Amino acid sequence: MNNHLGLLLVLSGPSGAGKDTVLHRLLEVDDNLKLSISATTRTPREGEVDKKDYFFISKSEFIQMISKDEMLEHAQYCENYYGTPRGPVDEWRGKGKDVILEIEVQGGEQIRAKCPDSVSVFIMPPSLKILGDRLRNRGTEPEEVICKRLKAAREEILQAARYDYIVINDDLEECVQEIRKIIAAEKHKTARMSNMIKGVLENA
Amino acid sequence: MNNHLGLLLVLSGPSGAGKDTVLHRLLEVDDNLKLSISATTRTPREGEVDKKDYFFISKSEFIQMISKDEMLEHAQYCENYYGTPRGPVDEWRGKGKDVILEIEVQGGEQIRAKCPDSVSVFIMPPSLKILGDRLRNRGTEPEEVICKRLKAAREEILQAARYDYIVINDDLEECVQEIRKIIAAEKHKTARMSNMIKGVLENA
Repeated sequence: MNNHLGLLLVLSGPSGAGKDTVLHRLLEVDDNLKLSISATTRTPREGEVDKKDYFFISKSEFIQMISKDEMLEHAQYCENYYGTPRGPVDEWRGKGKDVILEIEVQGGEQIRAKCPDSVSVFIMPPSLKILGDRLRNRGTEPEEVICKRLKAAREEILQAARYDYIVINDDLEECVQEIRKIIAAEKHKTARMSNMIKGVLENA
Repeated sequence: MNNHLGLLLVLSGPSGAGKDTVLHRLLEVDDNLKLSISATTRTPREGEVDKKDYFFISKSEFIQMISKDEMLEHAQYCENYYGTPRGPVDEWRGKGKDVILEIEVQGGEQIRAKCPDSVSVFIMPPSLKILGDRLRNRGTEPEEVICKRLKAAREEILQAARYDYIVINDDLEECVQEIRKIIAAEKHKTARMSNMIKGVLENA
């Protein structure tokens, strides 16, 4: 039906908003959606598979990719680089597949700058109170860490205004369905359909 | 769940693209969607009901409404004025109802200028050839008129680029479902959710 470029979807949201679960459910239900694999210079952990969990590459390779503008975004944590290689994203999109990546707010900003046609979705908890309850119910972190996370979440939520869309994750399935509607709607955006207009007119 | 302003949806498309059918099917399936009623200065035809088919008003009332900026758009055909009164649209939207109106391309342009938050959807025939077939199959108009309509359709399709979204009407139900996804997605647009961000942060 079309020869459109697939979408590039950027998913962000505070820790505890349920991004991971949403992302994996989306990949389960949407055959046309592909997960972008990050590159990193850190050593693989036990069980991690190259080109599946990460592209494990050397620091010099990573730096070279940055200089060739082959990273859509990148960041450094604890002496290691992490980033999104442009090549596989462009390849999938060229085949009409939509590509999704989960990233923190700063990385999202870099991608919006490099790919103005990307679609960014911020996953929002129903409230900070509920986010706090969720983090506490995990029972894995002391109250002090949870307070820090909630403070960080507040900062991130203030950045939500930079995203194209906001979806509240109150109910997982509903959240996933709403994102699917966003994907569908974005494909009807006029800016993505100029070839189609030509086709309609030529096919007279 | 929210106290958002309803959407203002503008539906356009060339004659024969099936706008009317799409519009009425949308109104059937979407309880939250209200049809905007036009105002006109022409005399009612037999069976036409004031405030249902049109707001039938006098020329002086119409001109006064224009001067008070109470018309979202208006046009003149054969000495009669036609327009979209702002009042009922604002009232429905204030109650969270989405309002839809079907209008030609020039009127759509006026509404986009007055309501930058409106959402415009262009209903596209699969091809000019199919549009021609549809018009001929109606069997109501001579070939000469059909040729004029197709020429007009070509001009209108060139204006489609000014719309936010384009939906091809190949299959009625599919077209309606896609527009419903656009409505759903638009409600997640960040610009429409600034109050929600506040709510999430306050509810700590």
